[in-house]
Amino acid sequence: MCGFMVVMTRPVLDFWFEFASSYSYPAAHRIVRLVRTADVDIRWRPFLLGPIFAAQGWDTSPFNLYPAKGRYMWRDLARICADLGLALHRPDPFPQQGLIAARVALVALAEDWGPDFVQAVYRAEFAERRQIGDRAVIADLIARLGHDPVRILTLAQSDEIKSRLRVETAEAQRIGIFGAPSFVADGELFWGNDRLEQAIGWARGQGRARP
Amino acid sequence: MCGFMVVMTRPVLDFWFEFASSYSYPAAHRIVRLVRTADVDIRWRPFLLGPIFAAQGWDTSPFNLYPAKGRYMWRDLARICADLGLALHRPDPFPQQGLIAARVALVALAEDWGPDFVQAVYRAEFAERRQIGDRAVIADLIARLGHDPVRILTLAQSDEIKSRLRVETAEAQRIGIFGAPSFVADGELFWGNDRLEQAIGWARGQGRARP
Repeated sequence: MCGFMVVMTRPVLDFWFEFASSYSYPAAHRIVRLVRTADVDIRWRPFLLGPIFAAQGWDTSPFNLYPAKGRYMWRDLARICADLGLALHRPDPFPQQGLIAARVALVALAEDWGPDFVQAVYRAEFAERRQIGDRAVIADLIARLGHDPVRILTLAQSDEIKSRLRVETAEAQRIGIFGAPSFVADGELFWGNDRLEQAIGWARGQGRARP
Repeated sequence: MCGFMVVMTRPVLDFWFEFASSYSYPAAHRIVRLVRTADVDIRWRPFLLGPIFAAQGWDTSPFNLYPAKGRYMWRDLARICADLGLALHRPDPFPQQGLIAARVALVALAEDWGPDFVQAVYRAEFAERRQIGDRAVIADLIARLGHDPVRILTLAQSDEIKSRLRVETAEAQRIGIFGAPSFVADGELFWGNDRLEQAIGWARGQGRARP
């Protein structure tokens, strides 16, 4: 008798996000809601846009560099957040410094509270106007999620985590990511909060026969 | 006896497009399909992005200035066009020069063949790889639509039409347009082919109570 072992694998969607990114705020909330019904596993992948923007000659967000685009983004984000029932209060300054939060997110994602932490950071930043670049703010968010801020912040400042964030950022750049949020399904890149449904569809095999 | 005269007005959506704009190609086809069932009147408003980009310090398309963004755009456009059944062959050079086409579009829109001409230009540019900055190509498109190229091109080069295109471009810039396609409903700006449904919804009164 011979046989095959059938391994059922669920589709995977990479969710690349940057804590300074305004449209990553609704995306981080929408993805949790959408994936409940979609049979797709999400890999949460924090990265830094700073080095990618710097390679394009930008020293701040394009929403600051191009004021018309910035004015539109804030209005558009207000419409999106209103639809989702998410509070929005524009952070000051914008963009916020997301480095510490990104390192902590890597620690939290390696444990089991990653998505909760990511959403908490975005809410603190875009709904509560807290300074997410401030260690004390991040420590408070960690504590509110029931974890020990000293333990977590120590891990987050380890060489291993620092290096992992650099590697992830380099990987984002390598695969052509130029903004956030971005989604990658089966090697296919989708950019923007409004492409999340399309990316989930691609992950589930819809559209793989396409161009 | 007294009474009111009730004037029923249909909602209006302004469709701002630029012939060099890649995402305006699917938008110009989708808008015709969507509006058939949406009870919305479209005002087709050609304009030039060149002066708006120049004000941001750009001398060509951002898709050329930022290669990662450009690579993504062509792939994304291929997916979109495949879904819509629209042929896509990347124009060379990109962007094409849309000045003559924009002036002719203003003439055609003042008559009754505007949308047909706009779609014909986009097909010539993005499906047939024709040079839309070439008068002879535009003359051929006019003739294929059953109009006299000499009459139309003469009108298109009139001071009135030249001035109108400048005024429209200045108006686009004044209301905060920074890219194409853009849609304006009841003073509300929406940017991008993928926001067309949302813009139509806004024009029909959905969302006016929103922020």
